[in-house]
Amino acid sequence: MTPQSINLAEAARALDKHWSPRVLTTVSGHEVKIPRLKGEFVWHKHDDADELFLIVSGTLRMKFRDGEVTLSPGEMLTVPAGVEHLPIADDEAVTLVIEKAGVHKLGDQATSADARRFE
Amino acid sequence: MTPQSINLAEAARALDKHWSPRVLTTVSGHEVKIPRLKGEFVWHKHDDADELFLIVSGTLRMKFRDGEVTLSPGEMLTVPAGVEHLPIADDEAVTLVIEKAGVHKLGDQATSADARRFE
Repeated sequence: MTPQSINLAEAARALDKHWSPRVLTTVSGHEVKIPRLKGEFVWHKHDDADELFLIVSGTLRMKFRDGEVTLSPGEMLTVPAGVEHLPIADDEAVTLVIEKAGVHKLGDQATSADARRFE
Repeated sequence: MTPQSINLAEAARALDKHWSPRVLTTVSGHEVKIPRLKGEFVWHKHDDADELFLIVSGTLRMKFRDGEVTLSPGEMLTVPAGVEHLPIADDEAVTLVIEKAGVHKLGDQATSADARRFE
């Protein structure tokens, strides 16, 4: 069967909730997800997984304990495993996120009371 | 150290040869590569690795033994492991390719005489 193409703008339009990515495709055990982001997430880290963010639309600020990077459409950044980060979309942003399957979006904060609003 | 952002358009401009991808970043053992494509590649498959193509600029036709998919900027497609495919860029296309590190671009055709022109 011929594989199907995936249109990122169409996939973004189908998202009705922020911080709730849909898995678009998998690549040898890695998931390609498309979350719609708005506002400030929570500081967290993934001890066992790198995480790639590729901006589809909008602007994403990624805060680190020692700096901050602003990402625009067509730009990407890999957060290495174990590095604390805080994604912030002051307006709204849509990104691709690529990481190993099974990684919890809240990383080490998955069970924190403060993070429950993102469940 | 704060991770650095990568601008896809800038990375594409830095490529001076077709079919010779540069590795831009890695995500838990997967490579994110940016090849500049022009013309017809060779029929091949990767027995042990899925391969994701995400179009940055131009148009890519992906031929399969049972069909063909045309990909435009903002569209992506995963070629499953073991599936023969033939990428064709009638003009010129730049894509992101994401797959496990160490996968040979020519797959099962890596040692074929016909494929040597892509080395």
